[in-house]
Amino acid sequence: MKIDGVDYRSIALDADGWSVCIIDQRQLPWSLVIVNLNSAAMAYQAIREMWVRGAPLIGATAAYGLCLALREDCSDRHLEASYQRLLEARPTAVNLRWALQRVRQSAWPHHGQARVEAAYACAAAICDQDVSNNRAIGDHGLALIRPLASRDGVVNVLTHCNAGALAAVDYGTALAPIYTAHQAGIALHVWVDETRPRNQGALLTAFELAQQGVPHTVIADNAGGLLMQQGKVDLCLVGADRVTRNGDVCNKVGTYLKALAAHDNQVPFYVAFPCSTFDFSRNTGSEITIEERAADEVSWIQGRASTGEQVAVQLTTSQAANPAFDITPARLVSGYITERGVVTSIASADVTDLESICDL
Amino acid sequence: MKIDGVDYRSIALDADGWSVCIIDQRQLPWSLVIVNLNSAAMAYQAIREMWVRGAPLIGATAAYGLCLALREDCSDRHLEASYQRLLEARPTAVNLRWALQRVRQSAWPHHGQARVEAAYACAAAICDQDVSNNRAIGDHGLALIRPLASRDGVVNVLTHCNAGALAAVDYGTALAPIYTAHQAGIALHVWVDETRPRNQGALLTAFELAQQGVPHTVIADNAGGLLMQQGKVDLCLVGADRVTRNGDVCNKVGTYLKALAAHDNQVPFYVAFPCSTFDFSRNTGSEITIEERAADEVSWIQGRASTGEQVAVQLTTSQAANPAFDITPARLVSGYITERGVVTSIASADVTDLESICDL
Repeated sequence: MKIDGVDYRSIALDADGWSVCIIDQRQLPWSLVIVNLNSAAMAYQAIREMWVRGAPLIGATAAYGLCLALREDCSDRHLEASYQRLLEARPTAVNLRWALQRVRQSAWPHHGQARVEAAYACAAAICDQDVSNNRAIGDHGLALIRPLASRDGVVNVLTHCNAGALAAVDYGTALAPIYTAHQAGIALHVWVDETRPRNQGALLTAFELAQQGVPHTVIADNAGGLLMQQGKVDLCLVGADRVTRNGDVCNKVGTYLKALAAHDNQVPFYVAFPCSTFDFSRNTGSEITIEERAADEVSWIQGRASTGEQVAVQLTTSQAANPAFDITPARLVSGYITERGVVTSIASADVTDLESICDL
Repeated sequence: MKIDGVDYRSIALDADGWSVCIIDQRQLPWSLVIVNLNSAAMAYQAIREMWVRGAPLIGATAAYGLCLALREDCSDRHLEASYQRLLEARPTAVNLRWALQRVRQSAWPHHGQARVEAAYACAAAICDQDVSNNRAIGDHGLALIRPLASRDGVVNVLTHCNAGALAAVDYGTALAPIYTAHQAGIALHVWVDETRPRNQGALLTAFELAQQGVPHTVIADNAGGLLMQQGKVDLCLVGADRVTRNGDVCNKVGTYLKALAAHDNQVPFYVAFPCSTFDFSRNTGSEITIEERAADEVSWIQGRASTGEQVAVQLTTSQAANPAFDITPARLVSGYITERGVVTSIASADVTDLESICDL
């Protein structure tokens, strides 16, 4: 992705060849702060405290976190303990487990420095694969957007949360088709859900789109249903934190409401993600425990005043609750865009085929 | 309503017998500021700049605004000009027109001081009627809540925006059944939608409920669908800015998304309002123009920092949009609670009967 005209990945090895550079996403869009992760503990903290977020980027960061752990101590015991520790950094995104398993599997047969090197090679491959997956998602999604473009002057896409380059290593999942279409010269406009309580839409998606020159408008999360009723949305495109065996989509809380509105207004609702987001260990979304985050995220807003403060939006006499994700039932999903292509139904696909297709 | 244990109405005549006391709701919940409206221009400003808001309270304030106008100049020409001016203060709530029409009709046959007195008498009657209507709405709504109480230990109600005492003269519309049930000893818990972009839920509804001692939790607007999926909502109760001939409900933007989720999860979705909220001049919600408010309401949040500042939640490189209301189709509404009782369908009722029942 371009930031101020310079190419960036959300995560990359530092020039020293072992420490890891990430963008501290808590500082965006106000300032671009690159942080150097030089320990497994720091990688854990970066995931846990959401310096990085987004299912694919969480996976990539955890992968490098395990590399850093092995650099500190490459024993079997430390590998296993670090794997478990990093796994607990965030509960929802299944890519975290997937990436950690891949690195552990690559490292396990080796010992000493060879183990460290195998881990780093695997983490780098995970990152490169993420970028190529996302480019493929962009190409597959383009095929969905192109017919809409021929129908209208401008294709209006609604997205929720941030499933862009900042949620991945580069390019993004839900935003990948938007970037591909934009580069292909298709006139697009993106409705960006603010995405309370953490405002990833207003803060990150709007920033990304502005930097890539894609026209967009930030809206309150409440507004999307109305815009669909008014015919102002041609397509909904969102990412996913997990997709279960039957096609239920666990994604940032509020996704389900947009899927209902899309269904009610015959607006196509597509979910874009790499196959590593599939969780075939769960049959339906109801088997996923929804992460409950701090109530303070609702009661206080992080923003930029002249003094850079946060402001309270309610009194302390009222409590707040803050579930972070929700489940969009498979019946509300028009299709799933992965790096392998677009499928309109997961439940009807032969699961064994699907698993082998996805290399899972 | 009680504020710090003292009884208040949201609007009342001052002790001087002619100027009008309102609560400046922009200051809530941080401070209780009573403002004295002593001119029609000030009443217009109070409505336009949302010192007062909520369909019934907008009507009551406009009614007194016309009284203040007549006190300044009781000519036919000034009556008509002031009526037109006040009508333009806010576009959506139909109670505004209804209240102004009532005051104009009462004042018109009289002249001089008698005209002013007739207007004041009518405005006072509108306020008293609002309170008695809302008590009736509370009683009718109680009959819906009681069976839910016998089923569970605690009745969980979800509400959007503020349709409480602060949106009316007292007691409220959607919150009236909650207050009635609370006073009847039914254990309740209210999920309060934050209601971006102006946060009337977090700021006003939470304040009201806390002051009346009703247990409640503020949630991001995105969370309601998930809570319904999880079985944590027994009933949705919202107010209305207009209800059209076919039963479509125009209310604060985001209402429609909650109605979709309620329908999808078999949660009853009730709309509470006085009959003055009916707009029989419109057949369906699609005939209502949705008010588009300032984009700054999305881009900036009003809250309370240590310095009382507002904070930006996005960069100025992204634009924002801010439609203020939406339309919930009649098919998603379980029932309509008015001071006359509960009806489950408006479209199927004989419209002439309905108009005469509602004195419209």
